[in-house]
Amino acid sequence: MGPARATLSKMRKLVAEFLGTALLLAAIVGSGIMGERLAQGNVAVALLANTVATGATLAALILTFGPISGSHLNPAVTLADAVIGGFPWKHVPGYIVAQVSGAFLGVAAAHTMFNLPLFFISHHARSGASQAFSEFVATFGLLSVIWGCARSRPSAIPYAVAAYITGAYWFTASTSFANPAVTLARSVTDTFSGIAPRDTLPFIAAQLLGAAGATLLFRWLTPKPGISHA
Amino acid sequence: MGPARATLSKMRKLVAEFLGTALLLAAIVGSGIMGERLAQGNVAVALLANTVATGATLAALILTFGPISGSHLNPAVTLADAVIGGFPWKHVPGYIVAQVSGAFLGVAAAHTMFNLPLFFISHHARSGASQAFSEFVATFGLLSVIWGCARSRPSAIPYAVAAYITGAYWFTASTSFANPAVTLARSVTDTFSGIAPRDTLPFIAAQLLGAAGATLLFRWLTPKPGISHA
Amino acid sequence: MGPARATLSKMRKLVAEFLGTALLLAAIVGSGIMGERLAQGNVAVALLANTVATGATLAALILTFGPISGSHLNPAVTLADAVIGGFPWKHVPGYIVAQVSGAFLGVAAAHTMFNLPLFFISHHARSGASQAFSEFVATFGLLSVIWGCARSRPSAIPYAVAAYITGAYWFTASTSFANPAVTLARSVTDTFSGIAPRDTLPFIAAQLLGAAGATLLFRWLTPKPGISHA
Amino acid sequence: MGPARATLSKMRKLVAEFLGTALLLAAIVGSGIMGERLAQGNVAVALLANTVATGATLAALILTFGPISGSHLNPAVTLADAVIGGFPWKHVPGYIVAQVSGAFLGVAAAHTMFNLPLFFISHHARSGASQAFSEFVATFGLLSVIWGCARSRPSAIPYAVAAYITGAYWFTASTSFANPAVTLARSVTDTFSGIAPRDTLPFIAAQLLGAAGATLLFRWLTPKPGISHA
Repeated sequence: MGPARATLSKMRKLVAEFLGTALLLAAIVGSGIMGERLAQGNVAVALLANTVATGATLAALILTFGPISGSHLNPAVTLADAVIGGFPWKHVPGYIVAQVSGAFLGVAAAHTMFNLPLFFISHHARSGASQAFSEFVATFGLLSVIWGCARSRPSAIPYAVAAYITGAYWFTASTSFANPAVTLARSVTDTFSGIAPRDTLPFIAAQLLGAAGATLLFRWLTPKPGISHA
Repeated sequence: MGPARATLSKMRKLVAEFLGTALLLAAIVGSGIMGERLAQGNVAVALLANTVATGATLAALILTFGPISGSHLNPAVTLADAVIGGFPWKHVPGYIVAQVSGAFLGVAAAHTMFNLPLFFISHHARSGASQAFSEFVATFGLLSVIWGCARSRPSAIPYAVAAYITGAYWFTASTSFANPAVTLARSVTDTFSGIAPRDTLPFIAAQLLGAAGATLLFRWLTPKPGISHA
Repeated sequence: MGPARATLSKMRKLVAEFLGTALLLAAIVGSGIMGERLAQGNVAVALLANTVATGATLAALILTFGPISGSHLNPAVTLADAVIGGFPWKHVPGYIVAQVSGAFLGVAAAHTMFNLPLFFISHHARSGASQAFSEFVATFGLLSVIWGCARSRPSAIPYAVAAYITGAYWFTASTSFANPAVTLARSVTDTFSGIAPRDTLPFIAAQLLGAAGATLLFRWLTPKPGISHA
Repeated sequence: MGPARATLSKMRKLVAEFLGTALLLAAIVGSGIMGERLAQGNVAVALLANTVATGATLAALILTFGPISGSHLNPAVTLADAVIGGFPWKHVPGYIVAQVSGAFLGVAAAHTMFNLPLFFISHHARSGASQAFSEFVATFGLLSVIWGCARSRPSAIPYAVAAYITGAYWFTASTSFANPAVTLARSVTDTFSGIAPRDTLPFIAAQLLGAAGATLLFRWLTPKPGISHA
């Protein structure tokens, strides 16, 4: 591949991460708005709609953008993949910028569809140790699913990740953000899925810890094929 | 293939598009009626039923008719496929006629099952810029999913498209029609899933713009295999 | 294969059809009872639970018993398969007896789990032309899905059939029985999923007509590989 | 494989069973708590959320840990696999200890996420013959699904098992524990998914009987390939 082609290939990856994360946030925030508007105050029904929409869209997006960029759509995934040597460090900053900026665009798109301001700060408090622990568990589980499938059945990853997030929306007290780009962008929507800006930092710290824990554990659990088949 | 066999093959494709789109509309309109009748006024529960039924039926229909006609079931898909050279232009009019007429038959079938008139004009207003923008996003996303999967994993398309529509019912303010044939046929049902006839034109225009946008973008994002593997 | 082994193989198939249909009816009737008991009168929520449970169990059962008996679990499927020459006529009576008796056992099992009499006649009226037409559409669609997938992607049948039934529970006015063995057995449960015995005959007649229609149509739509690839 | 490597491989399997069962219990108990808190007293909605979360997470966990340990996550599965000669008896005690201790850790994790005590005894009575019969049916069905898929399409097991449990939550009167480790651990949570300690023994006995019944039946139904293809 010549230098021009390499640049083109890198640009395609960045656009895929940008667009995929934008559509993911549109799905999370938009379905939260729709669910809350229609559910007549029954939060379980609103969250069920939010869950089904997020899980299904996530599967579709990973299938769509996976062949182009790997469909990380998540800085925690990009960083973890770089740590284990599966993704070049020099491309990490570009991916994270694409993911975070795409996430904000997705929130703005959802707001535009539902006749709301482009951005408005969330007042949804999500604080305390149990919320942070929830994000640790949520992201530990997410990375476990990715590493567990990556070695033996990578084609199942879109379904496994979507199924996991579908479950984690309900079994974590924080409804499983599990993604720093998602967390930042959800701070500028004062709707169902929002998070107050002051609560984003503990969420992101817990997510990175959970991702690191799962990545270290699975490096030991599922060693490289070259070693395990020796 | 001799000319008689070619004609036979083309007729099979048209029947598949006709029947597939009919069953799709029966599913959309029928489950909307059932959902609204049973949900005691909780629109979120009605839409959840409508969503699950539409997404599941769509997966089954694409699996069923895909091997015969490609299972477009959507003029926007047929046009986009012709634009990128994947489908011959001379077959486009036949496909669109089959899809639109099938869609109307499906609405009539749903009405007959639920003891309603064959057709009756919808009074469900779905107007305004945010509704049109919703349809742009919905169809942009739909075609993105199709093109993203088509190159690398075409066998996942039935699941990816169904999952995407399941999500898009909730994250777009218009509940994601994303299909001109569906839009036209839903104007003759004054039930849960209807759309007032005067609102169909902006919907269809937005859908075609969204389809065109995604198609152009993915022509750049996922170039032909011959080029990308060079 | 010697005669003893052939007999053993046939017995295994009959046991698989018996057990599979029993578990299917336990799922349909049991989840209907549970749904109605818990849903506080919201029929949409009860039917949603009934739908999710039936669709999911059906996928699992077809995956489980498919390799042994083909997992028909439905006399309409067995008859249609015999008509197109895919299943020997001499085995049809045995399959149907196994399916119908299994279906009744499944209802008794569900009743036992929920502390109800083994059997008690349903008073749930499901009569009229629109109900019969619903069953025609439901079974026409079911056989379309089976024949559409059978030629090109048989391994998708468990998922396609389960997805189709998940949708058809909502888009037909009869909630899609689509199976004569299921219809007969649901006449002896006076619970959510029951059907009054006098209404079973029109249901079964409509189901057989729908199955016949789809089978004839798909014999033309998807001709044998030997012909289509000539 | 040298002795050191064999020990390492065994340790990895035990950690996978421990962690997988922990995440499974976190999902069951956590989503039960969330569902009950949000559902405003509508138990059907709470159980629907609990069902969707458990089924989806279970699919993800079997996909994740299957390549490492077989992803039993259930002493009844481990014992049944040993009985048919698919799993060495000498590893059974280790697996069961890992599963049970992991299950308790998962309950503690769910409690921590939702600001509850690490453990507190359940007062949820689940007694009587119909409850025990429900567990017999639930586990008989679970093992049927596993053995039915294991021979012909093992890659479908994660989806088949998850789909089956999704259905069985609704069609058994006991909501389908179907797992002795899950049963024991759910006795120390006085929340939605709890079971009073005095009711655990009949549950476990019925589960083991159901597992034994299905295992014996499927040993006859799906004989070893070497025999059936002779």
